[in-house]
Amino acid sequence: VIRIALDAMGGDNAPRVPPTFRIQLVGRTADVEAALQAHGNVDRKRLDIVEAPEVVGMGEKPLAAIKSKPRSSIAVGLGLQKQGQSDAFISAGNTGAVMAAATLLLRVHEGVARAAIGTAFPTAGQPVLVIDGGANVDCDARELVGFAHLGSVYARDVMGRPSPGVGLLNVGEEDEKGNAVVKEAHQLLKQTPGIRYVGNGGEIDVVVCDGFVGNAILKFYESAGRMFAGMLQQALPDVLGRPEVKQLFKFLDYSEYGGAPLLGVKGVAIICHGASLARAIMHAVRVAAQMVESHLDQDIGAEFAEGGTVR
Amino acid sequence: VIRIALDAMGGDNAPRVPPTFRIQLVGRTADVEAALQAHGNVDRKRLDIVEAPEVVGMGEKPLAAIKSKPRSSIAVGLGLQKQGQSDAFISAGNTGAVMAAATLLLRVHEGVARAAIGTAFPTAGQPVLVIDGGANVDCDARELVGFAHLGSVYARDVMGRPSPGVGLLNVGEEDEKGNAVVKEAHQLLKQTPGIRYVGNGGEIDVVVCDGFVGNAILKFYESAGRMFAGMLQQALPDVLGRPEVKQLFKFLDYSEYGGAPLLGVKGVAIICHGASLARAIMHAVRVAAQMVESHLDQDIGAEFAEGGTVR
Repeated sequence: VIRIALDAMGGDNAPRVPPTFRIQLVGRTADVEAALQAHGNVDRKRLDIVEAPEVVGMGEKPLAAIKSKPRSSIAVGLGLQKQGQSDAFISAGNTGAVMAAATLLLRVHEGVARAAIGTAFPTAGQPVLVIDGGANVDCDARELVGFAHLGSVYARDVMGRPSPGVGLLNVGEEDEKGNAVVKEAHQLLKQTPGIRYVGNGGEIDVVVCDGFVGNAILKFYESAGRMFAGMLQQALPDVLGRPEVKQLFKFLDYSEYGGAPLLGVKGVAIICHGASLARAIMHAVRVAAQMVESHLDQDIGAEFAEGGTVR
Repeated sequence: VIRIALDAMGGDNAPRVPPTFRIQLVGRTADVEAALQAHGNVDRKRLDIVEAPEVVGMGEKPLAAIKSKPRSSIAVGLGLQKQGQSDAFISAGNTGAVMAAATLLLRVHEGVARAAIGTAFPTAGQPVLVIDGGANVDCDARELVGFAHLGSVYARDVMGRPSPGVGLLNVGEEDEKGNAVVKEAHQLLKQTPGIRYVGNGGEIDVVVCDGFVGNAILKFYESAGRMFAGMLQQALPDVLGRPEVKQLFKFLDYSEYGGAPLLGVKGVAIICHGASLARAIMHAVRVAAQMVESHLDQDIGAEFAEGGTVR
């Protein structure tokens, strides 16, 4: 049985999001119980409630919050995994606090310089993984190479791409373009064993960039999707009930995409959008289960333990 | 009469794009004449042809191309402006070559550290100007402040925003977030007279970022728009003929947005997408005329000549 700890206090809609999987709900027991009661027919056999009396607010400074609140839902939920009592942790709470706590409590695999957020982006074909989606705003070239390793393992294990192509987000196609860090990363990636670097040409499964750029694209996609959805609603009120149109709206709604894994830590941690609704959490639970079942954690450890890669 | 020099050799569709304004077509006279003949009923009274025997290819290295081809359509077109024989230059050719030539031939206004590309982005409300859209991949904080000045003047003169709000593209809303350059720029912008810096809150007309990030967002928007348009076509084949839907497609098609001004040079230069069709060039001509009529060039000179600003 895969045990998934779910932060019941994080996110705009916590703790009312109903669990849809075998879940350890971590939070203030009274609040969680009240939310479960309010929801009605919940299958309690699939649920544990794990008491965590403290709550980290969305606006709190991550590191200070984690240090001053050792009994927060975030710290307790990740702590379960450290103690071998859980397999994964999901939170829609304070992103920085989840990253800080995961790095402090679970620690990163040996050889991993920085944990990074992987975010799946829709394309006309299969989704691509953009890494880093916002964990590290200033990155050097070797850290970007590390993200290429993390993203490649994730693409193989969870996205079903046996030989993932890696691209580097850049302003142009030629070798001499890009900023200083990207130029260096481009040269390093060309000679990194174990990474199928395809530059800007060829089928790409993993796009490597620093967290500043990745986050900018992510936010931009969210707002563009909302804007397009709004225009569609205005322009075509009579066809909104059609199943194809509902599908299109799902595609435009980033909250449908579930959570983003924090890759590189020893364990499984997924960060969800603060505005996540039940469906997004359900997707995150599904991804968490895939991460556990595919032994992603061990595979990342092995990827970085192997010699011959640029680190 | 506003005289606009149009690079007749640049872009995938050159020189067949028909002129729709008082235009100086710059290029190989024989090719331009042939294209005009092929197009049929063109009002030649609104047209001059200016001979430029050399062509800069889309894949050529910008600086080398400009130096080795002084009689290219780009160099000749910008040269007209330098000699007082033209008011604006528009090209859908090699972006780097246009930037290099504009900087070399027109030079930047005193106090301008770097010329930057302004790109208009649609939002649910009015469009915002993202600056820099790709001219400078590595920027320091003072250069970002310079972009805030350039963007503010453009927003006032061309976009009709009397008191433009300036935002800084960042990963979070708090002062302490962002990468090192953005943190410093945030502090500088808060104390820069003449800039109405609204941070991440409040109505934003101008978004400041380095050219690497701006270009990433631009490309992403283009591909997202194409993707959404494709999905719409597949999902709703029966409503594609409706005017509202056509409007939606126009909105999704970035080539509708015309050109992007290169701001900071002494003069008017507009860079268009390589795949621009007639409509995009027409928009660029309209924007060029607005830039000339509003005396943007002089206003930028005055903005940077005034004391008291951080530069």
